[in-house]
Amino acid sequence: MHFSSRLLEQAVEEFGRLPGIGKKTALRLVLHLLKQPNSDVSRFTHSIDQLKEQIRYCKTCFNISDHDVCEICAAVKRDHAMVCVVEDTRDVMAIENTNQYQGVYHVLGGLISPMDGVGPSDLKIDALIERLKKDDVREVILALSATMEGDTTIFYLYRKLKDFNVQISTIARGIAFGGELEYVDEVTLGRSIATRVPYERNIG
Amino acid sequence: MHFSSRLLEQAVEEFGRLPGIGKKTALRLVLHLLKQPNSDVSRFTHSIDQLKEQIRYCKTCFNISDHDVCEICAAVKRDHAMVCVVEDTRDVMAIENTNQYQGVYHVLGGLISPMDGVGPSDLKIDALIERLKKDDVREVILALSATMEGDTTIFYLYRKLKDFNVQISTIARGIAFGGELEYVDEVTLGRSIATRVPYERNIG
Repeated sequence: MHFSSRLLEQAVEEFGRLPGIGKKTALRLVLHLLKQPNSDVSRFTHSIDQLKEQIRYCKTCFNISDHDVCEICAAVKRDHAMVCVVEDTRDVMAIENTNQYQGVYHVLGGLISPMDGVGPSDLKIDALIERLKKDDVREVILALSATMEGDTTIFYLYRKLKDFNVQISTIARGIAFGGELEYVDEVTLGRSIATRVPYERNIG
Repeated sequence: MHFSSRLLEQAVEEFGRLPGIGKKTALRLVLHLLKQPNSDVSRFTHSIDQLKEQIRYCKTCFNISDHDVCEICAAVKRDHAMVCVVEDTRDVMAIENTNQYQGVYHVLGGLISPMDGVGPSDLKIDALIERLKKDDVREVILALSATMEGDTTIFYLYRKLKDFNVQISTIARGIAFGGELEYVDEVTLGRSIATRVPYERNIG
């Protein structure tokens, strides 16, 4: 592309670094921002800067939060003996949207993926084990995507957790193989949590 | 969506205001930025703030520029008696990419579109007429998209410009009807400039 302005080129380059945003889309987005009032554009950039500077993670479940302890972990009426293990905050949002779950969460921050260089130590697995040692947990639900990485992580977690006195469940596989958890419709996802099965039955 | 953080929700809302970016995509992009180093994120937002604050438009052709006069208008070796009228800076970039054109440009900043409330006075049409009065222009090429709005704008411009002593051309309609100029492939676009025809022949 021949850019008539270096400032324009830089902004397009930065937008083009975002996942799924090509050069043409980046240019379209930047030109759109150029047409907006100054106040709208500075509100856009400020919201990102502020999020990045002030973001915190719940010290119990590691979900994104504005406080040291997230609203779910702080809620008295939730069942703190039931811990749902998920990949990231999008999965928490997806499960909350089903209104089927009253327990708490544990956000791993990813899945084990040797291809991407993500090992168990890159995830909040040790923190989950500490949580099981310290808190009175009755059941751990492994709600991970039905992908290779999800299955690998479930297998790893099961081996780590099976000696604790907790029920380990996985969400029912009504989810199509290869399906990413966050894109599953609410009815299917809600039902798969309601009809979760003990891990032993799943592999047996 | 149930957001666990108001800061996260705000940033997702801001991203979701961009054209073609839905809520799910906005969330994906914001979570991607959250995972990047601070320096990368501040470079992203700074590039947008800087562009918005420092952007200038060439006082001759109204293309986006870092200077009062853009590089194309400042270039001595270009043919300043040939003015190519385009909708926006993306069209300048598309035509420059063909390497078929050695004249200069005039960027209207849009097309006449009664549906969107865009009239002739919202575009740089008066400035184009002043330019024809002041400068020694031999030919005006109307290189606008083959859409209803493009045709309307061409018709309006032709009536305004026909009494000047200039050749008025439109780019050859090798472009499919309804085609947006910026998405045309370089060969077609280059040829359509090379084989441009006088406006009279196009309507006759």
